[in-house]
Amino acid sequence: MKIALIQNQVSRSKEVNCEKTQRKIREAAQQGAEIICLQELFTTPYFCQTEDPHNFSAAEYIPGATTSFLMELSREQQIVIIGGSVFEKENERYFNTSIVAETDGSLLGKYRKVHIPHDLGYSEKFYFTPGDAYKTFRTSKGNLGVLICYDQWFPEAARATMLEGMRQGNRASILFYPTAVGWTEAMRKLEPWSRQRWERDQCAHASANEVYVAAVNRVGIEGKIEFWGSSFVADPFGEVIARASSDKEEILIADLDERKIETAKGWYLMQNRRPETYRGLSQ
Amino acid sequence: MKIALIQNQVSRSKEVNCEKTQRKIREAAQQGAEIICLQELFTTPYFCQTEDPHNFSAAEYIPGATTSFLMELSREQQIVIIGGSVFEKENERYFNTSIVAETDGSLLGKYRKVHIPHDLGYSEKFYFTPGDAYKTFRTSKGNLGVLICYDQWFPEAARATMLEGMRQGNRASILFYPTAVGWTEAMRKLEPWSRQRWERDQCAHASANEVYVAAVNRVGIEGKIEFWGSSFVADPFGEVIARASSDKEEILIADLDERKIETAKGWYLMQNRRPETYRGLSQ
Repeated sequence: MKIALIQNQVSRSKEVNCEKTQRKIREAAQQGAEIICLQELFTTPYFCQTEDPHNFSAAEYIPGATTSFLMELSREQQIVIIGGSVFEKENERYFNTSIVAETDGSLLGKYRKVHIPHDLGYSEKFYFTPGDAYKTFRTSKGNLGVLICYDQWFPEAARATMLEGMRQGNRASILFYPTAVGWTEAMRKLEPWSRQRWERDQCAHASANEVYVAAVNRVGIEGKIEFWGSSFVADPFGEVIARASSDKEEILIADLDERKIETAKGWYLMQNRRPETYRGLSQ
Repeated sequence: MKIALIQNQVSRSKEVNCEKTQRKIREAAQQGAEIICLQELFTTPYFCQTEDPHNFSAAEYIPGATTSFLMELSREQQIVIIGGSVFEKENERYFNTSIVAETDGSLLGKYRKVHIPHDLGYSEKFYFTPGDAYKTFRTSKGNLGVLICYDQWFPEAARATMLEGMRQGNRASILFYPTAVGWTEAMRKLEPWSRQRWERDQCAHASANEVYVAAVNRVGIEGKIEFWGSSFVADPFGEVIARASSDKEEILIADLDERKIETAKGWYLMQNRRPETYRGLSQ
C-alpha cells in the first residue's frame, strides 16, 4: 500500500489552494500513491486564530463543492482521497469534517472531529460542534481510520477507532491525522519541545495499536502561527519511516508493509487489554 | 520532590539482593531522595522465563518478610519506598504486587499488576492472577501512581490511574513503573528498536496525562534475557530528564518540578477529553 501526504502552504484564495491541491494529487498519483491524504482545512487559511462570525459563510454542505471536487479527482486518478478536512455545515451546526472518496468517485463516508481545542490561536469551539463517533473505512486500497488534529493528543481516540474497526471486521492498517498545528513565537520559546512531543505521542498511538500512523500538517506562517509541517508516517512499532521538512511544501510518499502489522501483533497488545478495568475512562 | 530509581543486577540469593537494595536505598536517601522506587520482583531473578511450579514457594504474603523489610527501611530513612514488586500469595492465588511504604514505617497500600504478558521468556500468566484496580497513593512526599512493567504498553492503564486519583482528590504527580524487560539475542536482532519504543510509549503517557513518569528496570543477563536497564524519568511534556545506562547498576536521581505539571495542564488535555465517546474502550 503506497500512500502520499500533501503538505502545503495555503493562500487566502480557495481557488488557488484547490488548484495547487489538484496538481499535487495528480503528481502523487503519478508516483504510484494509492491513498492520498490532505491537511486539515486544506482549502483555507487556518481561520480559527480569530473568532469572526463572517467565517461561517465559508462552510459547505457535504456533499458539496469541495467534496465533489475530491470525488472527481478520486475517480479520475483511481485513488482513495482523504479530504484533509472541510468546514462542514449541516442545518445550523458546523463541524470540522474529513471525507473519504473512493476510486470510483463515490463518497465512502466522513469523520467529524471529536476533540475540539480552544486555546490561544486555536478558537475552535467558537466554530465547531464536536463529532461523537470514531470511524474506520474499508476502501478498495485498504482499511483506514481518520482522526483530525487535536484528536492526536488523546490515546482514547486512536484506540476507539481501532476497536470500532475490529468490531466491524475492518481493522485499520493506518490511522490518518489531517492536522493544522504550529506555534507562535512566544510558544516556540516557552515549549520548544512541542513539535517532538507531537510526533512522539502519535508514534506511541502506532505502537499501542499495532497500526501505521500518518500525520499531515501544513507549512507557512499565517497570522501569528508558524505551522510546523513535519508531516510523517510511523510504522506499527512507532518508528518514523518518512518525515517531511518543517517549512517546505512536500508530497511525502511512504510504502506500507502489512507484514509489519502482523509482526507487531506478536506483542499481543490488543489481546492483552483488560477492558473490564477501563470503565473509569468513559465516566 | 526528589526521587531515586534503583537499577540493580540481581543474584540468585534473595539475601544478597536485599542487602544490596538496602545499601542503595540508604545511599539514595543520603543523596536527598524522598521517594525511592525499586525494580519489579527486585528480590529474585526474573523467574518467569520458565514455567516451574517450584517457583511458587518463593511467594510471600503482604504484609510479610519483604514488606516488613521495606517498611523498616522507610521508617529508618524517613522516605517513601515503592517496593518494585513482590511475588504475592493470598490464599491460593498469586499476584505481581507493588507495595508503598510510608515514612513512618506504615504500609500505605499495594497495587497488583493488571496486564499480564505471556510470551516467549515472559510466562507470567503461569504465575500471576491479574489485578483489577488502578491505584494512586497520597503519600507524605507527594501523590503517586504505581503500575508494573507490561502495564506500560497500555495507555488505558496510565489514564485510568490518573482518573482514579483525580476522583479521589489525589491527582498523581508521577507514575512509577517498576519493570523487568529486555530481549533475547534473537529479539534484539529482529526488533532492535524495542528499547526506544519502550521509552517513547511511556513518555507519551507522561504527555497525555500531564504527569511525570518514571520507569525502573533491572540490568544484567539472566538465562536467555539481557535486561535493558535504561531506567528513566520523563517530565509532563514527555521529555526524558534522566536516563540510566543500559548495562550498569545505578541510582538514578531526579528532581521533579510541580510547576511543570501546571504548565503542561495549559494544553487542557484532561479537560478536553470526551469520555462519553470512549465507551468502546471498556467493552
